[in-house]
Amino acid sequence: MIQIAILGFGTVGTGVAKVVAENARQIERKLGEPLQVKTILVRHFKDGPFRQLMTDDFKRIEEDGDIRVVVEAIGGVEAAYEYTKRALSAGKHVVTANKQLVAEKGCELLSLAKKKNVNYLFEASVGGGIPILHPLTQCMAANRIDEVYGILNGTTNYILTRMVRTGAFFSDALREAQAKGYAEADPTADVEGIDAGRKICILADLAFGHQVNPENVPMEGVSRLSLRDVKVAQRAGYRVKLLGRAVRMPGGGCTAYVAPHLIPEESPLASVEDVFNAVMLRGNATGEVMFYGRGAGEMPTASACVADVMEALQSSPRREEIGWSADDSGFEDPLELQTRYYFRIEGSLTDAAMAFGQVEVLSEDGETAFLTDLITGRDALRQSKSLNILSCMRVLA
Amino acid sequence: MIQIAILGFGTVGTGVAKVVAENARQIERKLGEPLQVKTILVRHFKDGPFRQLMTDDFKRIEEDGDIRVVVEAIGGVEAAYEYTKRALSAGKHVVTANKQLVAEKGCELLSLAKKKNVNYLFEASVGGGIPILHPLTQCMAANRIDEVYGILNGTTNYILTRMVRTGAFFSDALREAQAKGYAEADPTADVEGIDAGRKICILADLAFGHQVNPENVPMEGVSRLSLRDVKVAQRAGYRVKLLGRAVRMPGGGCTAYVAPHLIPEESPLASVEDVFNAVMLRGNATGEVMFYGRGAGEMPTASACVADVMEALQSSPRREEIGWSADDSGFEDPLELQTRYYFRIEGSLTDAAMAFGQVEVLSEDGETAFLTDLITGRDALRQSKSLNILSCMRVLA
Repeated sequence: MIQIAILGFGTVGTGVAKVVAENARQIERKLGEPLQVKTILVRHFKDGPFRQLMTDDFKRIEEDGDIRVVVEAIGGVEAAYEYTKRALSAGKHVVTANKQLVAEKGCELLSLAKKKNVNYLFEASVGGGIPILHPLTQCMAANRIDEVYGILNGTTNYILTRMVRTGAFFSDALREAQAKGYAEADPTADVEGIDAGRKICILADLAFGHQVNPENVPMEGVSRLSLRDVKVAQRAGYRVKLLGRAVRMPGGGCTAYVAPHLIPEESPLASVEDVFNAVMLRGNATGEVMFYGRGAGEMPTASACVADVMEALQSSPRREEIGWSADDSGFEDPLELQTRYYFRIEGSLTDAAMAFGQVEVLSEDGETAFLTDLITGRDALRQSKSLNILSCMRVLA
Repeated sequence: MIQIAILGFGTVGTGVAKVVAENARQIERKLGEPLQVKTILVRHFKDGPFRQLMTDDFKRIEEDGDIRVVVEAIGGVEAAYEYTKRALSAGKHVVTANKQLVAEKGCELLSLAKKKNVNYLFEASVGGGIPILHPLTQCMAANRIDEVYGILNGTTNYILTRMVRTGAFFSDALREAQAKGYAEADPTADVEGIDAGRKICILADLAFGHQVNPENVPMEGVSRLSLRDVKVAQRAGYRVKLLGRAVRMPGGGCTAYVAPHLIPEESPLASVEDVFNAVMLRGNATGEVMFYGRGAGEMPTASACVADVMEALQSSPRREEIGWSADDSGFEDPLELQTRYYFRIEGSLTDAAMAFGQVEVLSEDGETAFLTDLITGRDALRQSKSLNILSCMRVLA
């Protein structure tokens, strides 16, 4: 009998308890012995089938030698950070879906785990139940990873899908997402690209082996996206998607950012709709591989946490390949990246051509929408200075 | 310095040597020490940069205590089977992309590996460079896997893509695939569904935990597929794809088969084109997740083998969760499965309705193409007995 503890009993914590109970047979077959939730840390006691497991005193978990793995499902940084450090220091494996904590403190927590010879695993922090981080660090370990990009936030993808399908404005699509429970009452972290930003930082950390600090990563969401751009793009054979993207740069550094992109409709990412997520990894040997599924939700996220619990127990003493250097000096401004750019301007094709030379016109009706050739973000800024810009987005090549 | 041997120096073997050389830095960073190919087993010596590593005597590898991992890249069963047994018996990890050997002898080789406390790993046997087997056995370990299906053969998917895009007949599309090097001179294993069949057996073994014998799995390829069906399906909003499919049955058993299917065009599998592969796994907690990429090719397949070499070395003593029971008694005939069926008959809608009651008509012009309601394969056979059937396929719901 292997015993674990859960910190926090919200959506993820509850899901973990459910998965452990419902899939007990599968889990026991793989682990060789049963897995049991012994203790659940809560702030306020709640009635229900798990009432007798609850405590509001973390010490009861920290000092319990029978508890080998702790699932941190508190979220945020403060308490989660403190309890994670204490659990690792007490020689327990820690598993989490907490993308904010991993993006901000992952490197430090991983080195503490290393010192204590235990695992700190966080597959569920990116893509919910979709396996991404283990495939990246393990199955693609013989590759040099050159690029990672994807649709990392289900809420904004749902909003964009509604805008395309029904011609809804952003604000109406957001209200619909809130009514369906896909968006929170305060949707800032989702719609402003912060959630996707934390995930692309974690992916970049693991892909390139160096710390990518969230505060260096430009994050642009979909809140200022106009329905007009979505429609112009669609008529020209593109879909607008919010992408997190991390790229290895020619000089050996890397960059990362979150922003809406135009994606050609033939791209496998273009048909990722509703709350689904998809992540593309590009390795120098494997080429592009894509992972697709539900990026959030109680049971998918919880099942990824429980798989990490099992992995932590089976990887003795610990998975060495999950980690990265604290050195963040190789980070470059994403404005150094070359891409094609989409512009919609108040002005004529002549204005566009004056600024960029040859362009590809997408629409011309009072305003002009066009695509530039491949240019850096810096050049796009500089050359467009004289234009009256209504919107500007990168194009995924 | 960790030393390995490669058996066979065809496409995969050569690729493994290349990946080890080209990505030496990435591999060393993850392993903590350099990886080196010490010996290559060949039947005929070839000149080139690896000439001095070659031997035609397996004993030189078997008896070399410095060689910790053997990559079996011979293919087929006979020699590959013998050398794999001898390498495992000598206490060496074995890694392979050999789907035939794993499908036929995997269970036996895994128990030999277990007895010798070493790993037998074969991520590259399904989906080439796309991570599938590790995500299935490890990242989704907390799920009950209820279904696995996918486009498992790139050659046939290329042929089907050409038939849809250019209206080519099967025979012309096959010749085109051969000219491009996507199909072998003898394309039987690909076009008759045997290659996909071996892969679905391996996926079913791992997903359900019991041996699924290739000889029990009905395998139907695309060689008898008519362009007419491809076109009728397309006009009705479906794509024809060759799927391998394995399903957990209500009674606790399972079934598996390979056959062309009609797939609704909204399905993420419908847009998987050319030589790309995609596998969908359905877990009771995670829901459907999909893995997509190049399912074959020298470098993708080789990089998966090298990742397995690294995994074998890092998982000490061995990955316990990769394996299944030799008991194959739970296998049920796929005719027990319920699906919708597509029929094209020489006859009228009245004939179709007489046989199946209400049907959904797809086309009516001399011949009649229609979809049935959800029925078992047995009922489909029985009810269609009086009809003059031109073609019949399952529909993916």
